[in-house]
Amino acid sequence: MHDKNISQVVISRLPRYFRYLGDLKDEGKERISSGELSKRMNVTASQIRQDFNHFGGFGQQGYGYNVNYLYDEIGKILGLDKRHNLIIIGAGNLGQALANYMNFERRGFYVRGIFDNKESLIGTKVRDMTVMPVEDLKDFIKENSIDIAVLTLPKQGATGLIDTLVECKISGIWNFAHCDLDVPDSILVENVHLTDSLMKLSFKIHDHNE
Amino acid sequence: MHDKNISQVVISRLPRYFRYLGDLKDEGKERISSGELSKRMNVTASQIRQDFNHFGGFGQQGYGYNVNYLYDEIGKILGLDKRHNLIIIGAGNLGQALANYMNFERRGFYVRGIFDNKESLIGTKVRDMTVMPVEDLKDFIKENSIDIAVLTLPKQGATGLIDTLVECKISGIWNFAHCDLDVPDSILVENVHLTDSLMKLSFKIHDHNE
Repeated sequence: MHDKNISQVVISRLPRYFRYLGDLKDEGKERISSGELSKRMNVTASQIRQDFNHFGGFGQQGYGYNVNYLYDEIGKILGLDKRHNLIIIGAGNLGQALANYMNFERRGFYVRGIFDNKESLIGTKVRDMTVMPVEDLKDFIKENSIDIAVLTLPKQGATGLIDTLVECKISGIWNFAHCDLDVPDSILVENVHLTDSLMKLSFKIHDHNE
Repeated sequence: MHDKNISQVVISRLPRYFRYLGDLKDEGKERISSGELSKRMNVTASQIRQDFNHFGGFGQQGYGYNVNYLYDEIGKILGLDKRHNLIIIGAGNLGQALANYMNFERRGFYVRGIFDNKESLIGTKVRDMTVMPVEDLKDFIKENSIDIAVLTLPKQGATGLIDTLVECKISGIWNFAHCDLDVPDSILVENVHLTDSLMKLSFKIHDHNE
């Protein structure tokens, strides 16, 4: 249960909290104060308390937060207590890299299939999966309860598949294509625009040296 | 020349403007009004004008912005008129994917070398480059005027190399490792935390369905 009007900024900080709490768990730490967490994360203790208050505060006592409890609760808010079935559309280098990244499975994200529209890639093996043609997308999504599509095709190929994904009522798209997607509100999109990110770094470097 | 106190939010929008202006250029469009651009980008025209005012406004006339001029100017602000020499540290799937991504070169980012600390990868070929051992990092950075290091090693390997990169006075780190880096202010860092991004998508999906 949480405040429905949480800002995107607060939400975007949750995975980082989750990451640090995972580290604390790995270190065997059982409790942590907002002051200690603030030092580690390089944010103010008051920001941490404000962020957590959106979710009921996670029951901080005078002696701090219970690390395991906080980790589990933030995990639940992020939907990590549920299983997600993913497909990757685009079996090029990036698609292959994501298919092979085992860390996602630890978080409940399972890659169930990989697709491409290139003859040369269809039928090849990625991890333990055979690359399928995009024509098979619809049936596969329905039969395998796929909720997330990872788009690693170039722009033209990606935009051409949007109608199919909408029709299949996919829940979310993790978009690596170098464009913004025009989808109905019922489909949630998270973009990873790599070139944009590299340009931001370039800006910072030049701004710093000016 | 620009206002030195521009917020990170405005800066983070610049690559997106650049991307849309590139599309307009490709379509052969010569002028565009803030109203038209606003419709395409799904942001308000007043936000566009406010953002551009941080950089002197880019000389909008009654009949709109000159697309080529605006594209070039934003490119310059992003430092894309200069050449950047990159190395990739981590020759696994993700490092290989980034090494093979030609789009970066179009923007002036040249991958000059690729490194790893794994015996099994050192000496293998990625694109036209032979994977080098991390021991060779220092000399290579100096001899090849490398300004950006792309970190695609797992967490432990990545944090262990920070001292070396600091010593080599690298300008920027594009960090894909699943951790935050502790570096002096002289080194600019841009993080791509893929797992964090996937968690954000998961949050959106669950928040939407609640």
